[in-house]
Amino acid sequence: LEQRFWRTAVSDVQRNRIAIRGYPIQELIAHRTFGDVVHLVFTGELPEGNEGVMIEAILVAMVDHGLVAPSAAATYVAASAGIPLQAAIGAGILALGDYHGGAIEPCAKLIAQGLEDCADTGQMEEVARAIVAEAVSAGERIPGYGHRVHTDDPRAKELLRVASDLGVRGRATALALAIERVLQENSRLTLNIDGVIAALMLDMGFDWRLGKAFYIIARSVGLAAHAVDQMRQKPLNAPLPEDIEYTGPPERHLSRPPDVGRDVS
Amino acid sequence: LEQRFWRTAVSDVQRNRIAIRGYPIQELIAHRTFGDVVHLVFTGELPEGNEGVMIEAILVAMVDHGLVAPSAAATYVAASAGIPLQAAIGAGILALGDYHGGAIEPCAKLIAQGLEDCADTGQMEEVARAIVAEAVSAGERIPGYGHRVHTDDPRAKELLRVASDLGVRGRATALALAIERVLQENSRLTLNIDGVIAALMLDMGFDWRLGKAFYIIARSVGLAAHAVDQMRQKPLNAPLPEDIEYTGPPERHLSRPPDVGRDVS
Amino acid sequence: LEQRFWRTAVSDVQRNRIAIRGYPIQELIAHRTFGDVVHLVFTGELPEGNEGVMIEAILVAMVDHGLVAPSAAATYVAASAGIPLQAAIGAGILALGDYHGGAIEPCAKLIAQGLEDCADTGQMEEVARAIVAEAVSAGERIPGYGHRVHTDDPRAKELLRVASDLGVRGRATALALAIERVLQENSRLTLNIDGVIAALMLDMGFDWRLGKAFYIIARSVGLAAHAVDQMRQKPLNAPLPEDIEYTGPPERHLSRPPDVGRDVS
Amino acid sequence: LEQRFWRTAVSDVQRNRIAIRGYPIQELIAHRTFGDVVHLVFTGELPEGNEGVMIEAILVAMVDHGLVAPSAAATYVAASAGIPLQAAIGAGILALGDYHGGAIEPCAKLIAQGLEDCADTGQMEEVARAIVAEAVSAGERIPGYGHRVHTDDPRAKELLRVASDLGVRGRATALALAIERVLQENSRLTLNIDGVIAALMLDMGFDWRLGKAFYIIARSVGLAAHAVDQMRQKPLNAPLPEDIEYTGPPERHLSRPPDVGRDVS
Repeated sequence: LEQRFWRTAVSDVQRNRIAIRGYPIQELIAHRTFGDVVHLVFTGELPEGNEGVMIEAILVAMVDHGLVAPSAAATYVAASAGIPLQAAIGAGILALGDYHGGAIEPCAKLIAQGLEDCADTGQMEEVARAIVAEAVSAGERIPGYGHRVHTDDPRAKELLRVASDLGVRGRATALALAIERVLQENSRLTLNIDGVIAALMLDMGFDWRLGKAFYIIARSVGLAAHAVDQMRQKPLNAPLPEDIEYTGPPERHLSRPPDVGRDVS
Repeated sequence: LEQRFWRTAVSDVQRNRIAIRGYPIQELIAHRTFGDVVHLVFTGELPEGNEGVMIEAILVAMVDHGLVAPSAAATYVAASAGIPLQAAIGAGILALGDYHGGAIEPCAKLIAQGLEDCADTGQMEEVARAIVAEAVSAGERIPGYGHRVHTDDPRAKELLRVASDLGVRGRATALALAIERVLQENSRLTLNIDGVIAALMLDMGFDWRLGKAFYIIARSVGLAAHAVDQMRQKPLNAPLPEDIEYTGPPERHLSRPPDVGRDVS
Repeated sequence: LEQRFWRTAVSDVQRNRIAIRGYPIQELIAHRTFGDVVHLVFTGELPEGNEGVMIEAILVAMVDHGLVAPSAAATYVAASAGIPLQAAIGAGILALGDYHGGAIEPCAKLIAQGLEDCADTGQMEEVARAIVAEAVSAGERIPGYGHRVHTDDPRAKELLRVASDLGVRGRATALALAIERVLQENSRLTLNIDGVIAALMLDMGFDWRLGKAFYIIARSVGLAAHAVDQMRQKPLNAPLPEDIEYTGPPERHLSRPPDVGRDVS
Repeated sequence: LEQRFWRTAVSDVQRNRIAIRGYPIQELIAHRTFGDVVHLVFTGELPEGNEGVMIEAILVAMVDHGLVAPSAAATYVAASAGIPLQAAIGAGILALGDYHGGAIEPCAKLIAQGLEDCADTGQMEEVARAIVAEAVSAGERIPGYGHRVHTDDPRAKELLRVASDLGVRGRATALALAIERVLQENSRLTLNIDGVIAALMLDMGFDWRLGKAFYIIARSVGLAAHAVDQMRQKPLNAPLPEDIEYTGPPERHLSRPPDVGRDVS
């Protein structure tokens, strides 16, 4: 019965009136940054501190990563087929998957669980050691550490510095860095961009399910630019690889009349 | 180095020559059904038995399930915004998820694992009892059994009958039905359409990763029909629910000058 | 008021009962091919002639065209990011655009309009000459003729032959071929796969809006195969081009404190 | 030959170095707002005036419009199927079509063309009258005026006011408002949110192809919130309409053995 109606607490839309989490949209347009309003939509409240600035810094950090990213490549080749902008960007967003932005959510869960243990023990380094030991014994990578291109990601380092200056770093970031210190006793793995975002999300109080949302919002900017770059090219020059290798069976032929199916010859 | 080239064994495309798994496309067009060619593309070989007919029966079974399916609803509302057919169908295909066609893959894995145990014991009923007992003790549902609309899905029953007539039923289907018998000692759960497809896929030798592919191919037909139905309506009468309930905070106002952000008034 | 309800004539879904255009799904599963049921869903009626066989031949023709097609390339790179099958296939379907399957609809419109003129004049060749002359004077290509890879597409030729054998060729195909003859007086352009499908669609009585639907249904097969090929690879070896050239401005630095925005250093 | 390489001027990605349009990403993270960086990615240069603030105001204005928007509804129903966040947001973005954000591009083209005529005549009101007269005689609506929900959209009015305060309003906005004055002699049509964005885009020097990009970036925020709302519900209570009306043929049965196709009974 209750499923006859859709319910939402995000916005209230009436004729000539739009309110986001209760605030008339015109007040937000006049007085608030995009980062503040992202915080409002995602948490229900405007930030009381510098969270809006931190969100903008995160969005800036993820705005583009070149055509080498699967999302940008998907948008680029899809746009070459002559499709509208929303479909080209949509194809790219679909490609933000487990191996491309996908470490944010599992990393956030791991850190959140670790923080609960810290509450009991008060010993963050011990918890970090336990997390690393468990991953080593299970033969698994810890999500949010290491990057296949960058050994020292400039985005990760700068976001941590900004977070300090803005006063939004908290216990989650501290634990994430404690894990990094333990890892570096035996490897060169550093907290990567996904791990930094996971930690800062927790410190700012966001639902972990929103992990990839920051990626999607920000990367839409780069995807739009790549799509329009493609749209300006001549469509018949679509930039697909010409050196695809065929590795299947050599030419062969139907050797006998099929048992099932038509024969129209 | 080897990643500089893309490789594929599916098809070889040269000027004026297209071969699918080695067969010239014109021979397949002339002599083979769509079901046969789905088998060829997915397994690398044309069927030697009735698998092509079985595949077509599966595709027919999943061709549409009304606007109540999330995939059809997503296509229907997306099409109301005035988008091309491929984007409207794309929106629907995205909605074939864990709760909508998503039981095929985990069910296939469960049965495949169970079959390995049967090879050891030769006792299919015992294996079925063990699978059910494990699910009960873990408090989990067994994927592929029960349906939120149908208690006795006409598609599941008919596909099993067709599979018997065509001689494509094998050990995977036998185990799936053994599990059903055990479940029915304490419930009314029946093997559902996802479970039947999972079992028949295994009996026909398909990669379990292709589980949702049959759904996607077949349901594209229904999605296309729903999208075109929407395209023929007047766009301004988009069929969105008008009785959405707002459950957020009541109207409120920015109470003080923000600390951060512009003030343009 | 009437917008409170969604309406559909495609299927009726009740508990334990699914009917497609009135026919119980179990009867269709038992007795009809996928091609027949595509005809049923798209037109409302089962075929009275060989249209179901023709539809399957069209689907077979379009099942794959290698990784060089934008749709396959989009699926392939998107799948490398670690996403579910429906999202990988969705990304590819989005890329069936104006330059990739997109000639079907405008070609069908052109031929349909031409047929109306033929009704008046009875002179198909004259109408074909008028269509070509108009395109030449407007400096435009006629959609459905010529292909950037194939000068003599084996799919187009074979589908026309099958259509003759099955008795589904009609006036639309005749006009499409009359246009081809006129074009070949001054060029080597041939009716391409999109043009053949456009003509056969009209001869079988389909809504032109469904033009790309056949492409989407059929190509989902190839896209599924390419996606699973990618899923089987090691994800860190995603096959993205490494030789992307950067053509933007050389390294530069923020030269002065910004007027607007934060400064956290 | 030149198509062997992909080229991009958006960003340069090397190991441990990411530059956006030449600027090291860490400098942008530290010193620039998201609005500034959107300007940088889309135009190649950082704003010299208040364009970054204006972009943020536009993004704030479009952040959400409730579940009544086709994009939000598509995301909401797609998410109910149990799919990852990027697929749920992707489904919504696909639904930003001709009737949902789609007036931005044609409105921008119309105004840009009108401005060229103004350059000749210097008489903006005359040009506005000509544009309206042409639309009236063609029986067409002018894109960017009127809204199916709002007669006086609070977003449109506030964005214009902010644009004045920020000094980014120019000739495009002036012409858009001149057209509004002419329209209001015979109707109540007002410049809508799409029209305001079209005019401001031109005044800020953006490529018209980017029209829907602002919508996509901003609305991703609302779509993410709606998707996560759905993810938190019990999946089996997916909020699909239960009162779908079936309008097709009543139950009927296959009346005779089919001519073509299998019969497995």
